[in-house]
Amino acid sequence: MKIEKYNINLEKAIKLIKKKEYKIIGIQIPDGLKGYILKIVEYLETKISSKILIISDPCFGACDIANYELKNLGLEFIIHIGHMPLLKNEEILIPTIFINAHSILNIKNVVKKSIPLLEGKTIGVVTTAQHIENIENVLEILKDNNLNPIISKGDNRIFCDGQILGCNLSSGMKIKKDVDSYLFIGSGNFHPIGLLICSKKPVIAADPYTNSIKKEELYKLRDKILKQRYGLIASSLNSKKFGIIIGIKRGQQRMELANKIKKMIDSSKKKSFFIAIDVFSSSSMHGFRDIDCLVSTSCPRIAIDDFIQYKIPILTPIELEIVLGLRKWEDYVFDQI
Amino acid sequence: MKIEKYNINLEKAIKLIKKKEYKIIGIQIPDGLKGYILKIVEYLETKISSKILIISDPCFGACDIANYELKNLGLEFIIHIGHMPLLKNEEILIPTIFINAHSILNIKNVVKKSIPLLEGKTIGVVTTAQHIENIENVLEILKDNNLNPIISKGDNRIFCDGQILGCNLSSGMKIKKDVDSYLFIGSGNFHPIGLLICSKKPVIAADPYTNSIKKEELYKLRDKILKQRYGLIASSLNSKKFGIIIGIKRGQQRMELANKIKKMIDSSKKKSFFIAIDVFSSSSMHGFRDIDCLVSTSCPRIAIDDFIQYKIPILTPIELEIVLGLRKWEDYVFDQI
Repeated sequence: MKIEKYNINLEKAIKLIKKKEYKIIGIQIPDGLKGYILKIVEYLETKISSKILIISDPCFGACDIANYELKNLGLEFIIHIGHMPLLKNEEILIPTIFINAHSILNIKNVVKKSIPLLEGKTIGVVTTAQHIENIENVLEILKDNNLNPIISKGDNRIFCDGQILGCNLSSGMKIKKDVDSYLFIGSGNFHPIGLLICSKKPVIAADPYTNSIKKEELYKLRDKILKQRYGLIASSLNSKKFGIIIGIKRGQQRMELANKIKKMIDSSKKKSFFIAIDVFSSSSMHGFRDIDCLVSTSCPRIAIDDFIQYKIPILTPIELEIVLGLRKWEDYVFDQI
Repeated sequence: MKIEKYNINLEKAIKLIKKKEYKIIGIQIPDGLKGYILKIVEYLETKISSKILIISDPCFGACDIANYELKNLGLEFIIHIGHMPLLKNEEILIPTIFINAHSILNIKNVVKKSIPLLEGKTIGVVTTAQHIENIENVLEILKDNNLNPIISKGDNRIFCDGQILGCNLSSGMKIKKDVDSYLFIGSGNFHPIGLLICSKKPVIAADPYTNSIKKEELYKLRDKILKQRYGLIASSLNSKKFGIIIGIKRGQQRMELANKIKKMIDSSKKKSFFIAIDVFSSSSMHGFRDIDCLVSTSCPRIAIDDFIQYKIPILTPIELEIVLGLRKWEDYVFDQI
């Protein structure tokens, strides 16, 4: 079905629900699309007779699979809207279909606008799930302008060629050596700035929603973020008690990394504690009055996006290495899973 | 171990962990006790060699059992501090021991202070988990003052005689006919006001933390809350689209009630949607831009405690009955599970 700027194709899910005769199903949807959910439910009600539960807990990404306790409410199946699959089927405890919310905005204009700003001939093209169906069009436009666009498969967390996540830039980084610059199609600054920092290659961001291009602005934002990170690292140098955040969400569990970090901290004669969290919030952290510094092995965006909410520094594992003198500031990169 | 105002006896848990040779254990603790958690972990580290994960997601009550995804991190056992058991063992997916945080405050003074305010001879005594070990002392003091104190078992959600929960006043309500007034030992207003509204008997609240007594103040607070609830009910009369909140936490799942409510709403020619939520937050609700009114079948405190956070009215099932003309305002009571 088409809803405003999106095409959300529910037919495959409907077919499956009918075939399996599911009595109770759930829907997960990111906050940004929540405004459409009643229309989606009303559409589904015309097609299937299952009881439909809107699952309202945060759904930032494909890591946010449904709570297993829902099984006890009789839930048999989940429609997860707006993200591409990330986990293996056997890691998902309630059968789930991932349905993309494809942007139906025309990307032609914004891609053309980006061309004068691209550097060199070979352009790495990356984008987020909602524009992934347009990636072939992007490549064609670039080719028509005598450029050599390339895309890459990424690692096993990446579902579509050329797709990047806030926590995974592999489809960009794998072609780092080959490209002269990157074209990122999408909105938000986190993805292109991550790519800029990690690849050290020029990145041009083309936003189909606002029909605008960013290049210089990204450098400025990068510098601002790096300054903030540097400040947080500096203010953590004398920390004595560390909290090591472990993500409970399946796609964010990095127990091995957490163990490695604990060893690193303990052998620096500082004290550390494991703190497991499902949904991160500043209020869930405020109670730990004796912790001086947090290190997050959970979603890499937590430390970067939300640092201002926390009274104490919250670092990525990369940043902790700098604090402990195990990495140089010059080798700073964004944390990825 | 004694920590400030509490006695938290961890020995039974330690014995069990040693016996079962658990490699990885978790600790859950309410926000109010989080400041003590590092001391608790450091104490446990001197007794057991298991890896210890502090589980930091909200832990408002015994409903907040650990997330099943923790099993995948190797977690074998949970120490849940500060609440008495509520669920059956088979409902808890990771083996859990509930350990009370007993208040070590002397209740003598505050109970004596309450005596002139108690009405009649037969006094129903109720309290919360942290003072439950003192309940025999309370009864003795009352008896010494020629009163006839009684306590009751409560229903199957209640672990100790005389204990009440925010969602369950049964150990008070079961003796309603027999008592002239109630003595509540504890802090906070939710429990005694709930009892005041539901029993329509005088309630005197004695707070061992502040060493203060409330009686008139409770009536005023009750009137304030009832006014707020009346206002919310009035503002919901023209609502067309209802969201029926279903709690995902095992102890808050009331699917049958949710189904009943859906039937009630649908037969009033209004539209309703099921919304399942684990951790309730105002931000998780703001996205539902077309919902006019929420009805919560989840934790009964959500509607009452947090109503100010929501842009739209959030009602209890009891209040919805009033909105739909199925109950009189005179028969208003607090929702209980």
